Amino acid sequence: MRVTLINPNTSRAMTDKIGRSAREVAGPGVEIAAVCPEFGPAAIESHTDEVAAAAAVLREVEAGQTAGVDGFVIACFGDPGLDAARELATGPVVGIAESAMHVATMAGRTFSIVTTLSRTLGRAHDLVRRYGFTEACVSSYATGIPVLDFEESTTEAFETIAAVCERAVRADAADSIVLGCAGMTDLCAALSERVGVPVIDGVAASVGLVTGMVRMGVGTSKRDEYALPFARATVL
Amino acid sequence: MRVTLINPNTSRAMTDKIGRSAREVAGPGVEIAAVCPEFGPAAIESHTDEVAAAAAVLREVEAGQTAGVDGFVIACFGDPGLDAARELATGPVVGIAESAMHVATMAGRTFSIVTTLSRTLGRAHDLVRRYGFTEACVSSYATGIPVLDFEESTTEAFETIAAVCERAVRADAADSIVLGCAGMTDLCAALSERVGVPVIDGVAASVGLVTGMVRMGVGTSKRDEYALPFARATVL
Amino acid sequence: MRVTLINPNTSRAMTDKIGRSAREVAGPGVEIAAVCPEFGPAAIESHTDEVAAAAAVLREVEAGQTAGVDGFVIACFGDPGLDAARELATGPVVGIAESAMHVATMAGRTFSIVTTLSRTLGRAHDLVRRYGFTEACVSSYATGIPVLDFEESTTEAFETIAAVCERAVRADAADSIVLGCAGMTDLCAALSERVGVPVIDGVAASVGLVTGMVRMGVGTSKRDEYALPFARATVL
Amino acid sequence: MRVTLINPNTSRAMTDKIGRSAREVAGPGVEIAAVCPEFGPAAIESHTDEVAAAAAVLREVEAGQTAGVDGFVIACFGDPGLDAARELATGPVVGIAESAMHVATMAGRTFSIVTTLSRTLGRAHDLVRRYGFTEACVSSYATGIPVLDFEESTTEAFETIAAVCERAVRADAADSIVLGCAGMTDLCAALSERVGVPVIDGVAASVGLVTGMVRMGVGTSKRDEYALPFARATVL
Amino acid sequence: MRVTLINPNTSRAMTDKIGRSAREVAGPGVEIAAVCPEFGPAAIESHTDEVAAAAAVLREVEAGQTAGVDGFVIACFGDPGLDAARELATGPVVGIAESAMHVATMAGRTFSIVTTLSRTLGRAHDLVRRYGFTEACVSSYATGIPVLDFEESTTEAFETIAAVCERAVRADAADSIVLGCAGMTDLCAALSERVGVPVIDGVAASVGLVTGMVRMGVGTSKRDEYALPFARATVL
Amino acid sequence: MRVTLINPNTSRAMTDKIGRSAREVAGPGVEIAAVCPEFGPAAIESHTDEVAAAAAVLREVEAGQTAGVDGFVIACFGDPGLDAARELATGPVVGIAESAMHVATMAGRTFSIVTTLSRTLGRAHDLVRRYGFTEACVSSYATGIPVLDFEESTTEAFETIAAVCERAVRADAADSIVLGCAGMTDLCAALSERVGVPVIDGVAASVGLVTGMVRMGVGTSKRDEYALPFARATVL
Repeated sequence: MRVTLINPNTSRAMTDKIGRSAREVAGPGVEIAAVCPEFGPAAIESHTDEVAAAAAVLREVEAGQTAGVDGFVIACFGDPGLDAARELATGPVVGIAESAMHVATMAGRTFSIVTTLSRTLGRAHDLVRRYGFTEACVSSYATGIPVLDFEESTTEAFETIAAVCERAVRADAADSIVLGCAGMTDLCAALSERVGVPVIDGVAASVGLVTGMVRMGVGTSKRDEYALPFARATVL
Repeated sequence: MRVTLINPNTSRAMTDKIGRSAREVAGPGVEIAAVCPEFGPAAIESHTDEVAAAAAVLREVEAGQTAGVDGFVIACFGDPGLDAARELATGPVVGIAESAMHVATMAGRTFSIVTTLSRTLGRAHDLVRRYGFTEACVSSYATGIPVLDFEESTTEAFETIAAVCERAVRADAADSIVLGCAGMTDLCAALSERVGVPVIDGVAASVGLVTGMVRMGVGTSKRDEYALPFARATVL
Repeated sequence: MRVTLINPNTSRAMTDKIGRSAREVAGPGVEIAAVCPEFGPAAIESHTDEVAAAAAVLREVEAGQTAGVDGFVIACFGDPGLDAARELATGPVVGIAESAMHVATMAGRTFSIVTTLSRTLGRAHDLVRRYGFTEACVSSYATGIPVLDFEESTTEAFETIAAVCERAVRADAADSIVLGCAGMTDLCAALSERVGVPVIDGVAASVGLVTGMVRMGVGTSKRDEYALPFARATVL
Repeated sequence: MRVTLINPNTSRAMTDKIGRSAREVAGPGVEIAAVCPEFGPAAIESHTDEVAAAAAVLREVEAGQTAGVDGFVIACFGDPGLDAARELATGPVVGIAESAMHVATMAGRTFSIVTTLSRTLGRAHDLVRRYGFTEACVSSYATGIPVLDFEESTTEAFETIAAVCERAVRADAADSIVLGCAGMTDLCAALSERVGVPVIDGVAASVGLVTGMVRMGVGTSKRDEYALPFARATVL
Repeated sequence: MRVTLINPNTSRAMTDKIGRSAREVAGPGVEIAAVCPEFGPAAIESHTDEVAAAAAVLREVEAGQTAGVDGFVIACFGDPGLDAARELATGPVVGIAESAMHVATMAGRTFSIVTTLSRTLGRAHDLVRRYGFTEACVSSYATGIPVLDFEESTTEAFETIAAVCERAVRADAADSIVLGCAGMTDLCAALSERVGVPVIDGVAASVGLVTGMVRMGVGTSKRDEYALPFARATVL
Repeated sequence: MRVTLINPNTSRAMTDKIGRSAREVAGPGVEIAAVCPEFGPAAIESHTDEVAAAAAVLREVEAGQTAGVDGFVIACFGDPGLDAARELATGPVVGIAESAMHVATMAGRTFSIVTTLSRTLGRAHDLVRRYGFTEACVSSYATGIPVLDFEESTTEAFETIAAVCERAVRADAADSIVLGCAGMTDLCAALSERVGVPVIDGVAASVGLVTGMVRMGVGTSKRDEYALPFARATVL
């Protein structure tokens, strides 16, 4: 089985890190490719960045379809371009935000999102509502750490995030923590040990979901909304 | 006061029609410019089209900001790029879908959306929920008429739409009808007369909303989420 | 175009102030009349007051209909008698609470309501829910200042309100502030400057909405619920 | 224990009928008074009627308070003036719409409302939402029978209502029926037998609720919103 | 009329206390039996306990049905086995959690739940949502006092609970308090006096509701979901 | 990795079938045990059956914990005892209803549930709401086929189910179908081919979810609600 993880920002370091995390949890028989666009925003930290990220995601899905990939992961917490990617793919497409939230609701009743910059909290809120997890998501916090600081995660970043996670558990009774950036993937295990509740990385979560769907033969429904759109020469 | 209407598809005929409708309801002292991108999708009929449309909207908002425009309208029923456009603009930005729905809730309790292709109903549903009108929107219907058929609206299209509107009033107790495509703007008055309830065109609705906001001095909040994003050379 | 603003309390000073604010934003070609009942409660600060206010609103709408007024504004933050007024009017009727909230949702994602006495917060909550803005309205605060103190707004009142607005922005991440009393209309511009986010006065907001609806030819749907009710000699 | 049922329309025949129904289910030790205003609308069939009805209700609650009544019932399905009545009363005040709905949710999972004129369905919908029963209320139907036809319920009215109830059970899987008019109270037992599911009359339901609250010593919370309002000479 | 209160834990002291409270508010003509299982959990403080409690409730409902009991109360705040009990009973079955919440919404707009251990708050949250009271329930608090400490309520427990109630009123603007354990029934009157708002004991509330339903002839709908299930020899 | 599937009814034939389906999608390195209780209801078709099923599930989870099992699946569409099982387990526990719904929301926007007897639809509705999928679940249908008919699925059952699935796709615009009984697992592939949209079997879905969670090291949060409960000798 071949799965492509699409990091929609241009950071090669982050893309490699995401690929490593995915491979660690993929289990036997799963081949993971981690890709990123050659041009576009270096980080996705605004709605404007999301628009560019969505376009990048679509180019990679088209390439993956041509190459016969079995499933796709959109490895950016805003799940940019998810609906459009489902139009272009025949196999399953999952975002890391939705993946992390789905898993969180099975690890307990409540979760809290801990993310990067406060200006992205609105997008996170939209996703929570779109996926149906308004009641489960008891709080969301920004750490103020920009995305690109996670190209190489520092002890300082770890300490900042850990403190916010502990606050969410204590003050909001969060049963688990959802990490709000693909770049935090390498901190997940240590954070979980420190905080004492499951800390959920969407990259790892997405691999379980997408490979499970491929194994059970469930792809994207091509009924109407997600059918392949009319091909337009000038779309992207 | 200067207001720019952005039609994110490349149809010049439709753009001109939208401009005429907007000027008819703009009142004295309002200068309307109707623009469209030179390249991009000819019609916005899928999530993939929406991604391209959002990028086109952002380019026009940036141009308008440079030119000192007071307010913007996104003249496509999916309101593509609305959040991102609000990051780039200082004045108000409104979409025609949200505009039509806001007005509908003041013209009665309930409304029905009558739109083009069935594959766009999911996006309409998302917008209804995002704007808070889940209870007011009692139904939504696709007529099966593609967007570009509205470059020159035909009697046949009128009859098809009128029949669906009448069904929504009779079967769903809709107090008003929200037209789900900017291209239907020239049919609005005749439909309203035929159906006997307010038929609401988002283009006309958006002009009232955006000019009212400019007059009262209310633009886009620059607090955090909608502050100007970090300028990235490669965004669009 | 003729628009009547109905202040349902008996304060002539407040009625005049509201009229002035409305005229400032009305644009050319709009004639504003600001009226209030001769008897009834001096201020609307309880559900009991609301019942009397609703009756006063209906008398003024009936008078306005006879005089051929094009649209109506109910200029009290509880929007008293709104449903009944829509039965009696053929043109549009908007309340200042709904108007302010509609505008707020286009100026940002979130808003906070800052109002007079705490006992009116329940009514505000009901309106937020009725209009569909439960997610957008992130908080609501009472200042403890009675309505009639706004007949002549003082510096002290301004400072009190400003402090509450600043708290809503800081603690609740409100993108804008909705003022919860028509009497605060003259403080709006200065508050907006002080607080740094849009501060929205329902009186000004309502003028944009109602004149926009008149210009586009959209009145109240007379389908069923809002059709003219059976005339009863003894109703009011 | 003394309980006052307030029929806010002026029909003496209907008031007497309501009183009889209430006494049948009141149990020992409960004294029921059924009152109606001397002037006002003969039937409550519009939002405009509701405004007048609310004023009538308040006058009767004030009279009852003076007379030392223990609890109040608002015996009109729109529950007009309920919030204001709670301000004026110290004991419990319940409406027949809320009473019927509360009981329905304990008699099964789902209920359907069967009422008089279609123009009142919007108000019923508002109450369902206000009381929290959006999921339990699976449908609502108008029979087209005006309120005053229930001064003396006919076989024809019974048959019409029974047919609608049967449709609600069959098509909407309603576990019970909530009757949408106090005037239907005398049909309740026969309808229940005919339809085969509990048919719930708000008058009977309200008596159980209000007497239960009096017996357990629970009145209206006087904390803030429902505290006695500032006395205004001109309120009603 | 005969009503059976089922305390699903094995504490005879608590069962007797509950029976006394119920009889105090039952009014003339109501015979109350308070029963508890001979074996099973001594207190219901976890989901695992709830499973055992549900089985105990069903055994008592079957016994009561055989004995011709008119109505049942499940006297444990988790309302364990409520749906299943409704399948087995023909008369009404009410839980004390739902009963307290129904009454609370008629005593004011908002309520707060004050209960025993924090691990039971999730179950309370589920019930609030199931019964439709998400908006009315403004907060819920655990006191940390285990259920069995209420076999004989102490002054210390009273003071702890009173302090939490006062906090809910002050910080959350709760119009009333819902007590989250049947064992608190004897503290209710003193708490209400101390806190100054209605404090609602589900045991007392349930008696009013179930006797009211019996008097009006409304039992459990036997339409489909709550019809008597297929008898299985090995069920319990 | 060892995963235990718990079929809470006593049908050995159905248990074996479920085990086979699970093994087909489990991927390398996963050892599946399918177990069922020796006594208890032969099928779970009522709330009363659910109570017994929950007790059976808990016994098997306790046994699995002792044996060091890594994760658990509750293989009955009502997800009986799920909250309690999470208290007793340290690894992940998933129900087949939640699993199927999670996967369905990633295969498209909307799904429809097709299940056995109509009396179980209320429970399905509760689960949809609990898991957050109220908007995604556009309809639910009962086929009228009892659970035990699926011990050996017949062509007639297949045709009945297929017809209902096709109706859900056509009439409700369901993007996928969720099968509402573990016993339908062997029909899934043929149904999907016939209906033309993804048909989702909760047994297969649960295997992907639970093994993914084990691989990423996420079990059940032991923070508070799902911590191991106080051991009571008499619980089960």
